[in-house]
Amino acid sequence: MSAPVREVGIGIVGYGIMGKAHSYAYTAAPRIRELPVRPRLRLMSGRNAEAVRAAARAYGVEETTGDWRALVDHPDIDIVDVCTPPGTHAEIVAAAAAAGKAVLCEKPLAADYATALGAADAVRRAGVPNAIGFNYRRLPAVSLMKRMIDEGRVGEILLFRASFLSDEFLDPSVPFDWRFERAMGGTTISDLGAHLIDMALWMVGDIADVSAQSRTFTTERVDPGSGRPRRVDVDEASSALVTFASGARGSFEMARTCARRPCDFWVEVNGTQGTLRFDYPRLNELLYGDAREDGSLYGMRVIRAEHESHPYAAQWWPIGQGVGYDASFINQAADLLERWLDGEWDPSIETGLRVQAVCEAMERSAEERRWVGVDEIAAKAL
Amino acid sequence: MSAPVREVGIGIVGYGIMGKAHSYAYTAAPRIRELPVRPRLRLMSGRNAEAVRAAARAYGVEETTGDWRALVDHPDIDIVDVCTPPGTHAEIVAAAAAAGKAVLCEKPLAADYATALGAADAVRRAGVPNAIGFNYRRLPAVSLMKRMIDEGRVGEILLFRASFLSDEFLDPSVPFDWRFERAMGGTTISDLGAHLIDMALWMVGDIADVSAQSRTFTTERVDPGSGRPRRVDVDEASSALVTFASGARGSFEMARTCARRPCDFWVEVNGTQGTLRFDYPRLNELLYGDAREDGSLYGMRVIRAEHESHPYAAQWWPIGQGVGYDASFINQAADLLERWLDGEWDPSIETGLRVQAVCEAMERSAEERRWVGVDEIAAKAL
Amino acid sequence: MSAPVREVGIGIVGYGIMGKAHSYAYTAAPRIRELPVRPRLRLMSGRNAEAVRAAARAYGVEETTGDWRALVDHPDIDIVDVCTPPGTHAEIVAAAAAAGKAVLCEKPLAADYATALGAADAVRRAGVPNAIGFNYRRLPAVSLMKRMIDEGRVGEILLFRASFLSDEFLDPSVPFDWRFERAMGGTTISDLGAHLIDMALWMVGDIADVSAQSRTFTTERVDPGSGRPRRVDVDEASSALVTFASGARGSFEMARTCARRPCDFWVEVNGTQGTLRFDYPRLNELLYGDAREDGSLYGMRVIRAEHESHPYAAQWWPIGQGVGYDASFINQAADLLERWLDGEWDPSIETGLRVQAVCEAMERSAEERRWVGVDEIAAKAL
Amino acid sequence: MSAPVREVGIGIVGYGIMGKAHSYAYTAAPRIRELPVRPRLRLMSGRNAEAVRAAARAYGVEETTGDWRALVDHPDIDIVDVCTPPGTHAEIVAAAAAAGKAVLCEKPLAADYATALGAADAVRRAGVPNAIGFNYRRLPAVSLMKRMIDEGRVGEILLFRASFLSDEFLDPSVPFDWRFERAMGGTTISDLGAHLIDMALWMVGDIADVSAQSRTFTTERVDPGSGRPRRVDVDEASSALVTFASGARGSFEMARTCARRPCDFWVEVNGTQGTLRFDYPRLNELLYGDAREDGSLYGMRVIRAEHESHPYAAQWWPIGQGVGYDASFINQAADLLERWLDGEWDPSIETGLRVQAVCEAMERSAEERRWVGVDEIAAKAL
Repeated sequence: MSAPVREVGIGIVGYGIMGKAHSYAYTAAPRIRELPVRPRLRLMSGRNAEAVRAAARAYGVEETTGDWRALVDHPDIDIVDVCTPPGTHAEIVAAAAAAGKAVLCEKPLAADYATALGAADAVRRAGVPNAIGFNYRRLPAVSLMKRMIDEGRVGEILLFRASFLSDEFLDPSVPFDWRFERAMGGTTISDLGAHLIDMALWMVGDIADVSAQSRTFTTERVDPGSGRPRRVDVDEASSALVTFASGARGSFEMARTCARRPCDFWVEVNGTQGTLRFDYPRLNELLYGDAREDGSLYGMRVIRAEHESHPYAAQWWPIGQGVGYDASFINQAADLLERWLDGEWDPSIETGLRVQAVCEAMERSAEERRWVGVDEIAAKAL
Repeated sequence: MSAPVREVGIGIVGYGIMGKAHSYAYTAAPRIRELPVRPRLRLMSGRNAEAVRAAARAYGVEETTGDWRALVDHPDIDIVDVCTPPGTHAEIVAAAAAAGKAVLCEKPLAADYATALGAADAVRRAGVPNAIGFNYRRLPAVSLMKRMIDEGRVGEILLFRASFLSDEFLDPSVPFDWRFERAMGGTTISDLGAHLIDMALWMVGDIADVSAQSRTFTTERVDPGSGRPRRVDVDEASSALVTFASGARGSFEMARTCARRPCDFWVEVNGTQGTLRFDYPRLNELLYGDAREDGSLYGMRVIRAEHESHPYAAQWWPIGQGVGYDASFINQAADLLERWLDGEWDPSIETGLRVQAVCEAMERSAEERRWVGVDEIAAKAL
Repeated sequence: MSAPVREVGIGIVGYGIMGKAHSYAYTAAPRIRELPVRPRLRLMSGRNAEAVRAAARAYGVEETTGDWRALVDHPDIDIVDVCTPPGTHAEIVAAAAAAGKAVLCEKPLAADYATALGAADAVRRAGVPNAIGFNYRRLPAVSLMKRMIDEGRVGEILLFRASFLSDEFLDPSVPFDWRFERAMGGTTISDLGAHLIDMALWMVGDIADVSAQSRTFTTERVDPGSGRPRRVDVDEASSALVTFASGARGSFEMARTCARRPCDFWVEVNGTQGTLRFDYPRLNELLYGDAREDGSLYGMRVIRAEHESHPYAAQWWPIGQGVGYDASFINQAADLLERWLDGEWDPSIETGLRVQAVCEAMERSAEERRWVGVDEIAAKAL
Repeated sequence: MSAPVREVGIGIVGYGIMGKAHSYAYTAAPRIRELPVRPRLRLMSGRNAEAVRAAARAYGVEETTGDWRALVDHPDIDIVDVCTPPGTHAEIVAAAAAAGKAVLCEKPLAADYATALGAADAVRRAGVPNAIGFNYRRLPAVSLMKRMIDEGRVGEILLFRASFLSDEFLDPSVPFDWRFERAMGGTTISDLGAHLIDMALWMVGDIADVSAQSRTFTTERVDPGSGRPRRVDVDEASSALVTFASGARGSFEMARTCARRPCDFWVEVNGTQGTLRFDYPRLNELLYGDAREDGSLYGMRVIRAEHESHPYAAQWWPIGQGVGYDASFINQAADLLERWLDGEWDPSIETGLRVQAVCEAMERSAEERRWVGVDEIAAKAL
């Protein structure tokens, strides 16, 4: 029927929930889209040998290793997919790039800008295909939002607003783990906020400067190892005002102390001609208000973002049936594998770096209680 | 690590959207749940050789055949999964059972009760594992609804209401195909309604009698083969009143002529102590109103049906992320494969027959414009 | 500046919640719309002298009487506004008409068709201005729905669906009162359903025949007077299928046993070109799906039914602020007073009679378990 | 029946939409609640004699005057109700207080803090009953939100978020009027934001400092008088971060350039034990998530804020029927008139001043691009 499709060897570094989502995506992607290559889940790495073996078995990965360097260097691995805690991303990315491997790194790129810059430089030098895991972009409705902005459906963007609320950190009795240690888990700004900032940069353009505030309500948590309290140096709730280079204004909210908010994010743009809004809990819908329409129809449309003309939609289910969280990862895997032969991946590690600069500008602004230019971050890092 | 898991050979009869959904489910199920057997997509059948080959390639099925009987008889096939148009289901089910194969049949079981009965008898005689594809039961929120009813959260059920609206048949210029021919596509009652009736029987219990009405607005459609109009003998919109054996009352609505309703179904039960409601467009949520609570909290809860304590939820994504349509098929595949060794599948072909009896009672009621007992259908069929 | 505005004397028969709503409406209407006459709340009647005095004081009515006949005959009364239980409506309407008074009667017109017919005949003979209190028609969004249907925004209507759910009768310990006595309170069909049937006739046209079912779950309730159980002869939950004269089909649901459903009604029409839907809990909105639009915008609009171009809206508040329940009564009072000089009131008592015929057809259908023609009701009544 | 109820003479300064809403409220309030005094709409003032006469006739006010000072000094006026543009509030309030009149002033108290302080001082010196028109507090659902916070239903408040979006200023062709002139119309911060800030102070407590940004997209508009462009010195869109004295954090958004957002405000608090959220477009509902509940019920409740146990609700309509915008003004009028005899009005002009300080802190912060303490504002004003 056709020449045998080339196999691409995947190595997953990390075996937590991201390891599961990414593995699942490689398994499902070829069933959703016809791809020029066939992904093969060769290897998964993790320090806890038993746990990583159980995970690999569950997620359908062939082999495991206790050492991510072995994975990076393994000749059968073409793509290194980094699903570890944020504080470890940069080193793995740099090593993978140096080893000539394509790399997909979960967001955020690092726990701080300087480290992220190192990873980006390594990737740049190596010239390997590279991507950062802003998976939510790949939801049909979010992708449609971007398309409609590009089509001029809201005119020139004036305002961008985004919010990401969870209750992950609300309970003070949740014990200390790496998520509460900034050097390892990054901040709430870079964990939840990175998604929002990515969408902002993607949809609106560069952010010039920011003013932010952060708060940690539970400042110590019991370390399950020692049984003793440990200081939490991660913000639990942050918010930020931003000025875009275009003159548009924005605001961001990211908090992990919001009761009965499991993972509720939304983004809204208001332009000279219209409004677009996406709410994650209704992830197959997109709200659109068109200011040019007759007043007798005043209001917002609820676009079912599953029409065959919509991004990704034709590859999935009939309109009205809906996709879930996994679709964002599956579409991501398919997008990358589809461009395997030319290596033009988007969003790239460079995008991850741009997002990191904004994260760090927010972190610094919250600390110093002043407006911080995003350029300052890049400048200081040099 | 452990003894090699036994393979179960799957044969998919049909290659349309159901063939895609079912194939996808077998691929994904082992990644969502640890299963005692490994499904292997061996064979897909279809009359159009080129189309079935393309589909098999896309869906990850190893081989194809132009003859479903070859599939049924193939020694490597353990489960025959019937995804063809309704009018062909019964014959394939009977043949598969006679060949000693486990069978999963898409709903409805047949285009009429007598034929369905034949299939059910064949399955009963053969004693093979068997199931009917009421996939929506396997959505976490629908399954939670059933659990909460069984827990007594709404008390004794007084009323059951359900509605399934699409716009598939609205446009009169849609050409004639098998969906408009009752003997092949069944009715709107048995296509959309079967899901609702299944939920009714599952959640409330037997239906005693029904009063229904049906209407076909576009009575002829152009046959793309001949270019000539052909008579449509399928109802486009039906509704029915029902009396449950328990004394509860119900109403059903199923229509394929509802503009901008892609696939919007909902079910609601009102009991002596509460109300539960599921709306498909918000498929990760379940509404619950508890009449025993203090009036100061009067209203409905929006339960995020993704808590780890909820049915299926722990196997999927963190709370708030949401699953899609595919989850219903993946959970179905996992449920069946999990019980492969003991063969206790639920809902069974027998359930499909019970649902078919209610469908036919509605069809007859609509024709004869009188209340029809569900028993009449069974009695007449003997 | 202009000639003194003529006063119109209002007499309210009854002092319950409808007496309150209607009185309130006459007080507020002149503040919402410029009217050619000034309503004056002259008299309120009720059997319990103390209660009616308290109500009149609260609602701003000048005088009270224990005898509705005195009110009807009072020379200062121009409009007799009937707010008593349904079983008493017809006699009062007939007497008011005979006395040459304009009459506004709360729905339903009577507890049965024959009695309703007597009232309608009396009004016809007297030739007085007359209206029936289908107040929900006067909500801006419902009125907009009717306008959009008339403008052809949904094309030809195929389907009409409506549902009205409350929990008023759910608790079996609610003691017996007139609402549980059919001769006095009418049925759930005529109490809740009458509103829906009115909208159906208004929006779609005549109903030809119906098939209905009814159920009373709590068949006896304690009479607070005697302390003894009394039989309830009112349906608690009814549903009905209908065939419109146009060929359109419909279904109705009306139940007072739905937990945590305080007063949730909705109506939906599906036409050849679009869908319109109104949900009472979002009473300032109207959903509209236009099948002629480009698929890339597939979905429903949420029209904020408060644009200055919308019915009633310009007289109220700026868009987005919203009106409440009272607006339906205030708009009703304003509509009637505005047409005081020419007496062309709509909907008239005749409309009330048409609705009553459908109610009775449903009641009879539920009793006899067969399709009943609406004509049968009228024919038998002669 | 009882001693004649004392009349309270009302004078309305201004005849725009607020003049209409306030007049309407005095007319309706006695029909919603039994009051110890009877409001009488004696006088309305406005510079355009014809317009004010038309308004007074429409709103039911007895007499008019072209001079607000005449109204303030009129012996029949007990309450001066200030409904003019913000820039004129303070002078009228001060004059009314000096004349010994009770005063209700629409928000904001002034266009700047120093002026607001003057008005507050005048009121303090005069010792007259006084109130500021934060009407949205009087919506049943908002009032319930406050009650539930006070009852400890969300525990200790960690986060407060609020947003108020309209599209009033989106169209650049809207001609210049007083709303675009800061000295007369105040800012978007003080127009829309004042409501949100009031709720924040009421529900959470004092705000310590703020960081804000503002933007005007259309910097000039045509003056309809001169036909020439005039500079707009009002912010069209502002947002702010705040630190509460309690340590809670907050964010505010207020913009008048959001297409198809007519008047959409929401407030949300996240506490240690729960979340409460109010959305104006669903003004009869309150969302509540209780973190202490069992995970199997995880989610938010939609409380129908119309239960007889809820604030204001018993005085209005049966549960489920809903109130509108006017209810906020009617409840305000009733609350004030109910306390006429003891003069304990709340929120007072002093509250208006507290809110103004926060508004000005935001305005200054936006100008100087730095965190501004609310104390700074008060200190500088002295």
